[in-house]
Amino acid sequence: MKIFSIVSILALVLGTTPFVLAQSSDMPAEANSSLKYVEFSEMGNPADVLEVKVDNARALKSGEVRVKVLATPIHPSNLLQISGNYGIAPVLPSTPGSEGVGEVLETSAEATHLAVGQWVLLVGGGTWRDQIIAPASSFIPLPDLGTPSSQLIEQLSMTAVNPLTAFLMLASFVDLNEGDWIVHSAANSAVGGYIIQLAKQRGIKTVNVVRREGLAEDLMSKGGDVVLIDGPDLVAQIASATDSAPIALALDAVGGETFTRLAQSVSYGGTAVSYGVMSGKAVTLNPAMIIFNDLRIRGFWLSKWFETASMTEKQAAFGQIIPLIASGVLKANVDSRFTVSNIKQAVERAAQSGRDGKVLIVPNQQ
Amino acid sequence: MKIFSIVSILALVLGTTPFVLAQSSDMPAEANSSLKYVEFSEMGNPADVLEVKVDNARALKSGEVRVKVLATPIHPSNLLQISGNYGIAPVLPSTPGSEGVGEVLETSAEATHLAVGQWVLLVGGGTWRDQIIAPASSFIPLPDLGTPSSQLIEQLSMTAVNPLTAFLMLASFVDLNEGDWIVHSAANSAVGGYIIQLAKQRGIKTVNVVRREGLAEDLMSKGGDVVLIDGPDLVAQIASATDSAPIALALDAVGGETFTRLAQSVSYGGTAVSYGVMSGKAVTLNPAMIIFNDLRIRGFWLSKWFETASMTEKQAAFGQIIPLIASGVLKANVDSRFTVSNIKQAVERAAQSGRDGKVLIVPNQQ
Repeated sequence: MKIFSIVSILALVLGTTPFVLAQSSDMPAEANSSLKYVEFSEMGNPADVLEVKVDNARALKSGEVRVKVLATPIHPSNLLQISGNYGIAPVLPSTPGSEGVGEVLETSAEATHLAVGQWVLLVGGGTWRDQIIAPASSFIPLPDLGTPSSQLIEQLSMTAVNPLTAFLMLASFVDLNEGDWIVHSAANSAVGGYIIQLAKQRGIKTVNVVRREGLAEDLMSKGGDVVLIDGPDLVAQIASATDSAPIALALDAVGGETFTRLAQSVSYGGTAVSYGVMSGKAVTLNPAMIIFNDLRIRGFWLSKWFETASMTEKQAAFGQIIPLIASGVLKANVDSRFTVSNIKQAVERAAQSGRDGKVLIVPNQQ
Repeated sequence: MKIFSIVSILALVLGTTPFVLAQSSDMPAEANSSLKYVEFSEMGNPADVLEVKVDNARALKSGEVRVKVLATPIHPSNLLQISGNYGIAPVLPSTPGSEGVGEVLETSAEATHLAVGQWVLLVGGGTWRDQIIAPASSFIPLPDLGTPSSQLIEQLSMTAVNPLTAFLMLASFVDLNEGDWIVHSAANSAVGGYIIQLAKQRGIKTVNVVRREGLAEDLMSKGGDVVLIDGPDLVAQIASATDSAPIALALDAVGGETFTRLAQSVSYGGTAVSYGVMSGKAVTLNPAMIIFNDLRIRGFWLSKWFETASMTEKQAAFGQIIPLIASGVLKANVDSRFTVSNIKQAVERAAQSGRDGKVLIVPNQQ
C-alpha cells in the first residue's frame, strides 16, 4: 500500500470529476454576468497559490445543467489539498472546493429530473466559483423547502461533508441503541458538533473530549452529556463520568495519545475509529489490548464512501440528513462569509485558530 | 477496560472450570494406580512453583466420566499464566494444562454419550495429570480412528489450541479464496506451522515472516510459498515476493515493528490481526494508513471464542480440524516427552529457545 505523508487530515469528500466553468455565449442573461472561479496551478500556502479567474459562460451540452452557486464552505481538508498535504494529490491546475448548495439556472433538454429554480447540493471538486456547468447527475436535488432563509442556505451548503461523516460514523461500525454511550475527540470541530447533535437525536449519550477549557457550555448546549479535557488521566475521567458504562464506539480525529486513550476507553469488543490526525502524531497501541479486549480499529474516509456507496445508500443517507438540517436539528456555526473575489482573505481566515465556525464562500451575496 | 501487563502472549484456551482430580475408592482397578497431578500455589518461575501431587481416586458422581490422559502439551501460554504474566490471573491453587487427549476409563450411568474405551479431547484448565474426572460434557468425543499410533495420539493432544487458532483466524476475518495471498509472522511457531498447512490445503498462498535464517526449508516443506526475514525492508520484500499482489489478511504474533510492517503490507480494506506479542513491544501506527487504506485491526483470543461460540460452531470447527489431523495434513513438531512426575524438567525444556517443536506430557508412557 501507499504510505501517505500527510500530517493532518479531516475526513472529506473530494470528487474526482471537477465541475467545469460555465463558459461561452447563447444562454440566459443571468449566466452572462461576471463568472469567477478559483484555481491553483501549484501546491503551496493557499493564500499565495490561489488565483481568481474569470471566463465567459458557454452553452450547455446534452445532459448538462447550469447552476448558480449560493454557498460553499472552506474545509480544513480543502486547505490541506491545496498545500499538498492530503491523501490524494490534485491534478494541476486544480479548482478547489468540495461541496455547496446551488440553484438551477438552466437545463439541457436531456436533463429531465432537474428544473430551473430547483435547489441542489453540489458534491465534487471545484465548487468555489460563481456558476457550475455539469451533468445533471452530478447534483443532488433538494426537496422543496419553500423560500429558504439565507441561514438555511448556508447550513445546506455544508451537508455533504461533515454531517455525512458524522452520520455514517454513527451508523456504519457499531449498532447503537438509545441510552448507549460513545466517546469522541475534537468534539468542538464541525464534525464533532454534528456527532453530538445526531447522537442526541437518537438518544445516544456522548463523552465529548476537547483539548482546551471554555468549550463545555457550547457543547452541552448542542446536546453533549459530558465534556472532558484530554490529558493523561482521560481514561479514568471517562470511566468516572460514565460510571464505567460500556462504550462501544470511539471516534477520533486527533491521533497520537488521544486515539490511544479513546481506544483504552472502549468496552470489550468495541470499535475505535480514526477519521483524522489533527495532532499529526502516530498512534501507539498495546497489542494485549487488541487481543484481550477484542478492540477493533477502523478508519473512515468519506471520499471512499462516495466512490463505493450505491445510489440507494447515498439517497438513504442524504434522505436522513437533509430533513434534519432543514428542520434545524443539525447545524454548524458560521464564522464569516466571503465572495469568490475575496478568496485569499477567506482562506486566511479559515486557517486561523480561534474561529467560531466555518468560513463560507457566498458567491452571489449582495 | 483493564490494561493487561503481560509482555508476551500466545493465543490459547484456558477453560475456567478446572478438571477435578480422580480421587477416592470404589472404581476400576486401573483407576487406583498412582494418580499424579501438577499444581501451583503461587505464581512464579514454573520450574520453581510447580508441584507434583498424588491423591487417591474417587467414585464418579452423576454425569461424570473418568478419563486417562494420554498426552497433553506445554504451551507458552501455560508458562505465562503460571508466572503471572497472562491476561487472566489463575485462582490459586491452580492446576495448569489447557488441552490434551484421553481415553474414557469409566462412565457414570447418566453419561450416555461417552463409552469406556472411547477417545476424547480434553479442553479446559488442569490437564497436566494422570487422570481426569469431569462431567461428560467437558470432553469432545473423537471419531473412531482405529488404533491410533503414538504419533497420532500426540498430534491429537494439540488439536484444541494451536490448530484451532490457525483455523479460526483464517476463517473469521476475511473471505479468502484459492490463489489469494496472506502474510503472517512467527511463521516457525506452532500456530504458524498450522497456518501454512491450512492455507496450503485451501490453495491460499503464504508469505511466511520469521526473525532468523535457517527456517526456510522447513517452512517451504510445510507448504509455505515465500519465507522472508523480518527487517526494516520487510514491506518492500513482501511486495517484491508477491509481485505486489493484494494481501487481504495479516496475522501477527510478534507485535512492535513487525505488526506495523505487516499492517503496511495489506491491501486496501485489508485486516491485520494481532494474536500475540512475542516481542513484548507496543505497536506504532500512522492513522493515515488506517484512514486512507481502510486498514482494519482486530485481535484474536481463543479463550473468548470458547466462551462465546455456540456448540454448533464448535462442532463445525473441530469437525474440520480433527480429520485433517487424523489424516496427517495438519501436524506439529514434537520436541520431547515427559511424565507428570518430571514436570520441572518438562517446563524447563519448554522454556528453552532452540527447541524443535512442542514439549508434551505423556502421563502413562512406559
